[in-house]
Amino acid sequence: MATITGPIDVSALKARLERTAAATEQAGIDALLISPGSDLRYLIGAGGESFERLTCLVLPVGGTPVLVVPKLEQPGYAGIPTDELGVQVVTWVDGEDPYALVRAALKGTGRVAVADMMPALHNVRLRDAVGGEQTLAGPVLRELRMRKDAAEIAALRKAGAAIDRVHARMGEFLRAGRTEAEVAKDIAAAIVEEGHTVADFVIVGSGPNGASPHHRDSGRVIEPGEVVVIDIGGPVAEGYNSDSTRTYVLGEPKHADVWDTYAVLQAAQQAAVDAVKPGVTCEEIDNVARTVIADAGFGEYFVHRTGHGIGLDVHEEPYIVSGNALPLEAGMAFSVEPGIYLPGRWGARIEDIVVATETGVESFNNRPHELVVL
Amino acid sequence: MATITGPIDVSALKARLERTAAATEQAGIDALLISPGSDLRYLIGAGGESFERLTCLVLPVGGTPVLVVPKLEQPGYAGIPTDELGVQVVTWVDGEDPYALVRAALKGTGRVAVADMMPALHNVRLRDAVGGEQTLAGPVLRELRMRKDAAEIAALRKAGAAIDRVHARMGEFLRAGRTEAEVAKDIAAAIVEEGHTVADFVIVGSGPNGASPHHRDSGRVIEPGEVVVIDIGGPVAEGYNSDSTRTYVLGEPKHADVWDTYAVLQAAQQAAVDAVKPGVTCEEIDNVARTVIADAGFGEYFVHRTGHGIGLDVHEEPYIVSGNALPLEAGMAFSVEPGIYLPGRWGARIEDIVVATETGVESFNNRPHELVVL
Repeated sequence: MATITGPIDVSALKARLERTAAATEQAGIDALLISPGSDLRYLIGAGGESFERLTCLVLPVGGTPVLVVPKLEQPGYAGIPTDELGVQVVTWVDGEDPYALVRAALKGTGRVAVADMMPALHNVRLRDAVGGEQTLAGPVLRELRMRKDAAEIAALRKAGAAIDRVHARMGEFLRAGRTEAEVAKDIAAAIVEEGHTVADFVIVGSGPNGASPHHRDSGRVIEPGEVVVIDIGGPVAEGYNSDSTRTYVLGEPKHADVWDTYAVLQAAQQAAVDAVKPGVTCEEIDNVARTVIADAGFGEYFVHRTGHGIGLDVHEEPYIVSGNALPLEAGMAFSVEPGIYLPGRWGARIEDIVVATETGVESFNNRPHELVVL
Repeated sequence: MATITGPIDVSALKARLERTAAATEQAGIDALLISPGSDLRYLIGAGGESFERLTCLVLPVGGTPVLVVPKLEQPGYAGIPTDELGVQVVTWVDGEDPYALVRAALKGTGRVAVADMMPALHNVRLRDAVGGEQTLAGPVLRELRMRKDAAEIAALRKAGAAIDRVHARMGEFLRAGRTEAEVAKDIAAAIVEEGHTVADFVIVGSGPNGASPHHRDSGRVIEPGEVVVIDIGGPVAEGYNSDSTRTYVLGEPKHADVWDTYAVLQAAQQAAVDAVKPGVTCEEIDNVARTVIADAGFGEYFVHRTGHGIGLDVHEEPYIVSGNALPLEAGMAFSVEPGIYLPGRWGARIEDIVVATETGVESFNNRPHELVVL
C-alpha cells in the first residue's frame, strides 16, 4: 500500500512527470508502466511496495496518466495530489482484471517499458494483456533520478548526518565478548533513534567475517584485538537513504599487518573522494581507488566496484565501476567505498556518501576515516 | 544476499527439488529460473532479497541445478548444502554477464518459467538472453508451497503463539492520547521481543482510519471511546509468518452501533473458521463469512476477500476468495479475516491464521475474539 511520510512538493512532481514524458518519447517508448517502489515515489510521492494485487501508474506519451489501484488500497493514496498532477485514478476490486484496466489506459499496442523492480507476476501478465514489445523503464528514469535536485541533496545530507551519529555511538554497542548479532540489534535500534524510519541493513563483520564484503551478522563472539567492519544505513522520512561504513578494532590489533594495510585503504578512499568533480567519469573514480590499492600489492583483495549511486534506493545509478564511462555531473550522489579483504583473516572498508558539486565534491559522511580503536 | 536463520533439513529440501522437477515437467516447462525470495528459500533454504546483481537458481528438467551467484555474495550461501542437494554453484564478478551464465546452464532454448517475484530488471534481461518462451513459475511452485509439511506447520504455530503474546500485551501500548504512530512503534518493538526476527507490518487504524482496511498508522491522536483495528505480524527464525488482527475499544464505544455490529462480525468469522475442513472449497469459506455479514445488512461494508494463504510469504496461495474453487486439503494454512468498514466512522476486523487438518481445523491464533475493552 502507499505510505506518505515525506513532504509532497507538487510543482517538483509535475516537473518530473513532464521530464519523464519527454524522455520516454525520446527513447522511442510509447508508455511507462510503474509499480510501487522508488520509481513511483519519485514520480508521484507515493511509497509502498508491490504485492500480489496490481497497482500501476500508466504514463502514455501524449496521453493522460492513469493510476490503476486496488480499491482496498486507494485510501493510502488519499494524500497524493492526483488531481493537481493530472493523474486519473481507476480502482478495481478482488475478482476484476486489473491488467485489462492497464490495457484500456494505453493508446493501443506499442512499445511499453516496465519499472525495473516490477515483479514478474505483474510484468509477465501485463505483457500478455497488453501485447506489443516490453522493455525496461530503468534507462529512461535513471537519467532523471541520478541527477538530484536541492531537496533530494538536503534529504541525503540529513540521512548522512543521522548515520554519522550512529557511528559516533559505536562504543556503546561494539565490545569484545558480545556476538555480532547482539551488536547488530543495538545498532539497528540506534539507527531508528537517530532519525531513520527503519534500520534497512546492519553489517557487523568481525575478524574473518570482515573479509566477506556482504556478510551481515552471526552468532560469532567478537574477540579482543579483532578488526570489525560496520556497514549501516536506512531511509529518513523523505525516503532517501544513508549508507556508511567504518572499520573498528577492539584494542591493539592481533594481526601485525593491520595498521599498514589500513593506511593503504584510507589513502585509496581519500584519493577517490578527492578526484570527484564534474566531468570525471565513474570508471576514473573507480580506477583512482583501485590503483592506490593495487600499487601497494593488495589489488586481488579489493573484490568489488568502488561505489554505487544512492537516493530513494540504496543502490541505484550511477555505479562507480570499471566500464562506466558516464561523466559525473553536479548533483550525482554515490558511495566511495573501497575495501581490502584478506580471506580467513580480517577485512576493512571505508564508505562515505558524496555528491558531485559545481566545483568538486561534498561528503555527507564526516566521521574520521582512521581505524577506530574501541 | 543470502541469510540463513532457520535450520536446514537436507532431506526435506531434496524432496522439494525432486517434486519441483516433476511438477515442472508435467506443466510442460523446460526450466525454472528462481531469484532470491521465498521460492528460493523454499527450495534450497537460502533467504535474502533480489538486488541489481543477479542471483538465480536454474532448474532445468532432467539437468543439473545451477546456482548463479555474484562472487561477492557467495559467502552468504556457505551454509547451504549445495553439494548434498546436487546444486552446482557458478559465480560471477562485476563486469561479467550473469545472464549468459544462465543461458549456459540451460539445455538450449525452450519454455522457461521465472519466479513470480523476480524483478523485471532480471526477467526482461533473461528473456532477451535466453530466448524462447517465458512464463511464470508460480503456478508450478504454489502446488507444493500451499501444502505445508509438519515442520512448516510447527513454524506457523510458533509464529502464531508469538503474535498472540503481542496482542496479550496491547494494554501496555494502546491508550487514548497517544498517536497511532507511537502505538505502532511500541508494538513493532514487542513483535521482535516476543520472538519474530523483524516486525514486518503494524496496522493501527483508529476511529475512521479503522474503516480503511490497509491503513498503516498516522500522527492521528487516538481518543477515548474509539474503536481501533490492530493488524500485526512478522516472520520467525524459520522464515514463516504470523498475521493476526484484533479490534479494541478505549473504554465505552462512542458510537452506539459498535456492539451489535461487532457481534455480526464475530459470528461471521467464527462460522468461517468452523467451516474449514478438507474438501470444502476456498470460495465456500469466503461465502460463509460473507453471507453472515450480508444477511445482517452489512454486505457492502465487507470490501475484501476473506483470507489469504500464509507461509514463507505473508500473502500466498490459497486465496480465500470468490471464484477460487480449489478444495481445501490438510496442510493448507490461511487467514480467516472478515471485516466491516463504515466509511468515516469506524471499522473492525478479526483475523486468525488456521490450517486445515485431516479432521477439520486448527487455529494458530487463540486470543479471545470479543471486542477488547482497554
